[in-house]
Amino acid sequence: MKKIPVVERIMSANDKVAARNREVFDQHHVHVVNIMASPGAGKTTLILRTIEALRGKRAVGAIEGDLASEVDSLKIRELGVPAVQINTGGGCHLDAVQVNAILDQLPLEELDLLFIENVGNLVCPVGFVLGEHTRVGISSIPEGDDKPHKYPTIFANVDALVISKIDLLPYLPFDMDEFQRLVRSLNPEISIFPVSAVTGEGMDDWVQWLLELTS
Amino acid sequence: MKKIPVVERIMSANDKVAARNREVFDQHHVHVVNIMASPGAGKTTLILRTIEALRGKRAVGAIEGDLASEVDSLKIRELGVPAVQINTGGGCHLDAVQVNAILDQLPLEELDLLFIENVGNLVCPVGFVLGEHTRVGISSIPEGDDKPHKYPTIFANVDALVISKIDLLPYLPFDMDEFQRLVRSLNPEISIFPVSAVTGEGMDDWVQWLLELTS
Repeated sequence: MKKIPVVERIMSANDKVAARNREVFDQHHVHVVNIMASPGAGKTTLILRTIEALRGKRAVGAIEGDLASEVDSLKIRELGVPAVQINTGGGCHLDAVQVNAILDQLPLEELDLLFIENVGNLVCPVGFVLGEHTRVGISSIPEGDDKPHKYPTIFANVDALVISKIDLLPYLPFDMDEFQRLVRSLNPEISIFPVSAVTGEGMDDWVQWLLELTS
Repeated sequence: MKKIPVVERIMSANDKVAARNREVFDQHHVHVVNIMASPGAGKTTLILRTIEALRGKRAVGAIEGDLASEVDSLKIRELGVPAVQINTGGGCHLDAVQVNAILDQLPLEELDLLFIENVGNLVCPVGFVLGEHTRVGISSIPEGDDKPHKYPTIFANVDALVISKIDLLPYLPFDMDEFQRLVRSLNPEISIFPVSAVTGEGMDDWVQWLLELTS
C-alpha cells in the first residue's frame, strides 16, 4: 500500500450546509452516525437490529438514502422509530443539502441518536460530509477480504468499521486477521466490530460502543 | 415501481471518445463486454472462470478498473491472458478517456473478446459508455433480492444480468422468482444467468451466450 488516501476538501457549498446541519444536531443533543457501505452489505439490517438492542436505552431515528424506493424507511418505521427516506434519483451519495431539506420531518428534540444510512456505494459517500459526528463503514464477509486494497479511501476515513455477515465465514474464503491488518494499516485508530445481525454475535460490543458515544 | 429509469445522455466528451474506442474495437473485430456490479459481487472471479471456460475457443483480454491496486489484473495475467489495470484514484467509474489511454497496451489484433471490469459500484458506471458492445451487470445472492427496487438504473440498462454466488442460496433468504420478476419489470429484454463460479452451476449457459456474441 503506497500511501494512505485521505479525503481533503475545501469548504465547499456542501461543507457549509453540513456545518449548519451539525449545529442543528448539537442544539438538539442528537448524536448523528453516517453509515456507508456497498449495496447489500447489511446497512439496513444492522440498523434494525441496533434499534432493537437500544430500545429503552436510547431514542433512535433514521434517515434512509437510496436512489429509489421507500423500502428501507418502511422497515425502520415498522419498529416504531421515526425514519425519513431520501431518494437521490440517480445520485450516488447523500449530500448535506438533501439532509437539511428533511430535518423538519424528524422529531430531533426527542432523539439521542440518528442514523443516516447513505446510498449503497463504497466510493462516493465518503467525499460528502452531512453534518454527522461519527462515520461508520460496513464491509461484509461475502465482499471478500481484498476490499481495502481496492477501495482504500473509505477504510481510511471512518471512525469505525463493522465487519458484517460473519455467520457466513464457514462458507466463504475470508482471512479475518489479514483483513483487519490491512484496514489498520490504512487507519490505525479505527474501531472494528465483527458482527452477525442474524445470530447476534458481536452485537454487544457494537451496541456498547454506541451507548458510550451517546452517554 | 413507478417508472423505468433510462440513462439518457447528450453527446458528451465521454461519448465522443467512447465512439472512437468503438471504432478501434470494430477495426480489430474485438467484441467488448463492460461488466458492472457492486464491490465484491464477484466480477473478477466470474471473469477468471469464464476465461478458463473459453480457453481454446476464444482469445480473451481484460481491462481491470479499481480505485487502487493491481490485485485484479495480476490475477488475470496469471492465466496467461493480457490484462491492463486502470486505477481511477478516487473515481467511482471508468470513463472512455481512461480506456482510450491504455488501448495500445493490449494486443487487440489477437483478441476475440475483451472484458472491461468496471469499478465496483452499482450507481456510477452505468452512466458512462466506454465503447463497449455489450453491458453486463452482476448481482450477488448476499446483496439481497431487493436491489432492483433501490438501484433500478443499472438493471434497466444492461443487456444481461449474472446472478452470482448461487451456491450461497441455502444460507441466505433470497426469493429468486421475485428477484427475476422485478428485474424483468425494469428490463423485459434482459438475459439472466444464475451462476456459481465456485461450483460451476449455470456457467455453461453464460459461456454459450458469450460464444454466440463472438461467433
